[in-house]
Amino acid sequence: MSHPHPELGSPPALPEGGLRIVALGGLGEIGRNMAVFEYDGRLLIVDCGVLFPEPDQPGVDLILPDFEYIRDRLDDVEAVVLTHAHEDHIGAVPYLLRERRDIPLIGSKLTLALIEAKLTEHRIQPTKLEVIEGERHAFGPFDCEFLAVNHSIPDALAVAIRTPAGIVLHTGDFRMDQLPSDGRLTDLGGFARLGSEGVDLLMSDSTNAEVPGFVTSEREIAPVIDEVIRTSEQRVIVASFASHVHRIQQVMDAAAKHRRKVALVGRSMVRNMGVARDLGYLKVPPELIVDSRDIEEWPPEDVVLICTGSQGEPMAALSRMANRDHPIRIAEGDTVLLASSLVPGNESAVNKVINGLTRWGARVVHKGNAKVHVSGHAAAGELLYVLNLTRPSNFMPVHGEWRHLRAHAKLATLTGVPEDHIVIAEDGVVVDLVDGRARIVGAVHAGYVYVDGSSVGEITDTSLKDRKILGDEGFISVVIVVDSNTGKLTAGPEIHARGSGIDPMQFDEFIPQIERALAEKAADGVVDMQEIRRVVRRTVGRWVSDTYRRRPMIIPVVLEV
Amino acid sequence: MSHPHPELGSPPALPEGGLRIVALGGLGEIGRNMAVFEYDGRLLIVDCGVLFPEPDQPGVDLILPDFEYIRDRLDDVEAVVLTHAHEDHIGAVPYLLRERRDIPLIGSKLTLALIEAKLTEHRIQPTKLEVIEGERHAFGPFDCEFLAVNHSIPDALAVAIRTPAGIVLHTGDFRMDQLPSDGRLTDLGGFARLGSEGVDLLMSDSTNAEVPGFVTSEREIAPVIDEVIRTSEQRVIVASFASHVHRIQQVMDAAAKHRRKVALVGRSMVRNMGVARDLGYLKVPPELIVDSRDIEEWPPEDVVLICTGSQGEPMAALSRMANRDHPIRIAEGDTVLLASSLVPGNESAVNKVINGLTRWGARVVHKGNAKVHVSGHAAAGELLYVLNLTRPSNFMPVHGEWRHLRAHAKLATLTGVPEDHIVIAEDGVVVDLVDGRARIVGAVHAGYVYVDGSSVGEITDTSLKDRKILGDEGFISVVIVVDSNTGKLTAGPEIHARGSGIDPMQFDEFIPQIERALAEKAADGVVDMQEIRRVVRRTVGRWVSDTYRRRPMIIPVVLEV
Repeated sequence: MSHPHPELGSPPALPEGGLRIVALGGLGEIGRNMAVFEYDGRLLIVDCGVLFPEPDQPGVDLILPDFEYIRDRLDDVEAVVLTHAHEDHIGAVPYLLRERRDIPLIGSKLTLALIEAKLTEHRIQPTKLEVIEGERHAFGPFDCEFLAVNHSIPDALAVAIRTPAGIVLHTGDFRMDQLPSDGRLTDLGGFARLGSEGVDLLMSDSTNAEVPGFVTSEREIAPVIDEVIRTSEQRVIVASFASHVHRIQQVMDAAAKHRRKVALVGRSMVRNMGVARDLGYLKVPPELIVDSRDIEEWPPEDVVLICTGSQGEPMAALSRMANRDHPIRIAEGDTVLLASSLVPGNESAVNKVINGLTRWGARVVHKGNAKVHVSGHAAAGELLYVLNLTRPSNFMPVHGEWRHLRAHAKLATLTGVPEDHIVIAEDGVVVDLVDGRARIVGAVHAGYVYVDGSSVGEITDTSLKDRKILGDEGFISVVIVVDSNTGKLTAGPEIHARGSGIDPMQFDEFIPQIERALAEKAADGVVDMQEIRRVVRRTVGRWVSDTYRRRPMIIPVVLEV
Repeated sequence: MSHPHPELGSPPALPEGGLRIVALGGLGEIGRNMAVFEYDGRLLIVDCGVLFPEPDQPGVDLILPDFEYIRDRLDDVEAVVLTHAHEDHIGAVPYLLRERRDIPLIGSKLTLALIEAKLTEHRIQPTKLEVIEGERHAFGPFDCEFLAVNHSIPDALAVAIRTPAGIVLHTGDFRMDQLPSDGRLTDLGGFARLGSEGVDLLMSDSTNAEVPGFVTSEREIAPVIDEVIRTSEQRVIVASFASHVHRIQQVMDAAAKHRRKVALVGRSMVRNMGVARDLGYLKVPPELIVDSRDIEEWPPEDVVLICTGSQGEPMAALSRMANRDHPIRIAEGDTVLLASSLVPGNESAVNKVINGLTRWGARVVHKGNAKVHVSGHAAAGELLYVLNLTRPSNFMPVHGEWRHLRAHAKLATLTGVPEDHIVIAEDGVVVDLVDGRARIVGAVHAGYVYVDGSSVGEITDTSLKDRKILGDEGFISVVIVVDSNTGKLTAGPEIHARGSGIDPMQFDEFIPQIERALAEKAADGVVDMQEIRRVVRRTVGRWVSDTYRRRPMIIPVVLEV
């Protein structure tokens, strides 16, 4: 089994007849999935998603894969295959298209309809959208076969990529629901057929590799949702992901059964469900839906609201309801149903929302106290099926943090994949499939690219370190004006501090210390501005540290007149 | 059932013969437990703990209860009863003793030994420590009876407080382990006897009120720990709380059985286990313990390290091992056992630690994949026993967030406590027990007091708001020097920015805009410094918002010469 090699250097040239695989995201993290395949100088990309920031990445809106590795070779890209329309698989497409507008986007009907709606919001008119109709299609040297997989969004695909280097099967995200409501099963028959043909490399979803056993069927949620709505005396508010068409279908079915009207709340919910309905993925009985702005006209017991915000996003409707900062005011007897997963990293935010809603008297039903969510990702017991059916010569776990990749690798060894044919790679690690063997041959840069406001990539890790210091400790700026000839103080020191928690009165007492330190320097005949800055920084830093045991950022500003 | 009343005013005077209860912490949050009882002008305090900060309280070390409510009445305090030695029950004692040194501290032997060690670190010499020996002791008008409870630290107590107003039973934190290794059961017989006598108000631990069923016995962990150590080929590193004597006893027993040496890592672990051993709560076989600095002298297969850091605390040994920033370098084949709960709010930090350890090749065993932790708090099924045995006239759930308090209140109604005899109070809400009825009569201020570095209470919510803005967006300061007569620019504008993610080169292009805006003002004949600041702030703010769609903090600094 290959282990992390922080010392990996630049990769050698790709041998003729070899296939190169570089993940720019999704390995070592859950999110921003993007894999770049190279054969004979041509590139195929599978997915192009975003990662959502953690608390130690403050102020960041989104994290993109770093396109630097392919930036000079965008013309070599034959296509971007989008396995399904979740943000962690399509969210970075608008940013990639900014760099080359006419990259062909390939996917199923719903996937492309949702990416098109997204691109429209970004004011990007894609030039090439190609819906997978048949099962097989070649993009340059990449002969792709698409296989149905079941996931927590309809119309998801796995892709088998055939090149002279061999067959690579990339599962995308999948689960193995054996009783899906739309009858669209993960195509295990297809996986078996590929296995017989010979899968040279399996790249398989590792998200739930640590979870033992099996994921129950989505349809097992229906009776629970039905019961929640049946027993609710007032309004029912359901929060879910805006892409979970089947979950929302179940909510709508239960609402219709209990003669409640449904209102959709939240821009992405309204947009996506519109697309899903137009394309026939969502079946909405006539007159079920009412406009959320008119919802107060209906008695509370006749209403189901479906909204976003299940992850505690502070600006979403649900958080604002919890804070009494939304037109819909939670009242005693209301029921809130969080029909969604709890994405790691969001625990505190969701807990705050649950407490806020509970405080105002709502009953909150969530996956912690009722069977209102099943995962969209196959668990360990199911991943074994895929490994056994495909019998890959080489295995590379994808879509997961280290803990998930390692757990998945362990499962592969249990099914008989030799340890030295298992590649655990991180983002940027270069894997070559040559003569039937997958090996790590080097690494390229694959850092985080931060989106903040309208700018992409301008926020760096240095900015984030500064934000961390500023956020934890605040800052103190000391402004002085000195005579450039004598080095003597002309004005100031003026001290400004924010977030430091130090009473400004304290500064007045301290200013003489700065003046004394500067006067000493001036007496030395020093007029070096750098040196004056250093003196100010050191004097203030020592005072704060000694007096308060704190380390705010200290900004000395010296102006000359 | 009483509901939140944001409009609660100051409480009226306490009627003669009535008992007043004000929680300064622990209601609406898990932590900083502190309840103040008042009878006939005298005060009794139960617990005095700290709360650990959430991600939206950056840079804060600890959060204390606000002592303002009792500050003028410290001389009326008869005693502080400490139910057990967890930080959320004793952590604020040093800060309270700073305000009055000779407040008597009452508790069991281990509790007082641990608080004494803590006070010594704070360089505080307490004057009155009183170990509970008998079961009953009066402190002024408060006739207290102490009852054993089982918890995740030895020697925990519940307290029944008798005054002419009635009997209040405060459970402290407890669980109902029916097979505790030290044989010290929660005294349900005592609870039943009090129930027969007549409990006028039950205040009971709500932490696990949402968890259905029962908590299994601590001893069920022993075979799992044994198996983990038996099957480990290299080092075993166990992370746990530094107060969990019984858990650490089980680890030491298993280590001894498998002929491994044990080293303790971490200041609080070494300190607390020393106290527990000296007092006989921890049984350590001779020659089991070795100094952690000598650990490299032993073969990896002969070693168990016990350390802190199970909550992902960044400075603790475990996090530093995960980051390869510790003398103990994790290697393939090492086993790390997180034998602890995962405290809400720490999920991301612990996940990072697990991924880091896994990346270096460690097997990580935690409560998610093995039965290596049981909770220290009674679950819903067990809380019903306490309600049924004590049959309280009034019930007030304590120690919990809103979700837990509400869930516990629901349990009380199921056992027959009338809804209007249940009081759900938040921190600061004043509850009076008068003529056998507990009622909310008002509220006092009970905000957060932040400890940051050596200062207490100097960080305010305003400072935290500033830190939030600085942490998310950084700042831009614009310094100008103007002639106080003409308002004309003498020096600057000099722009400094940190954490804003804006390239300083951009400022150079923007400076003329500021100069122009100032020149316009000067032409108007305006020399008002406030107005100049406003112009700078507005000009810069608009530019950043339009160009970058961001909102950094903008600090205009205007000096006059």
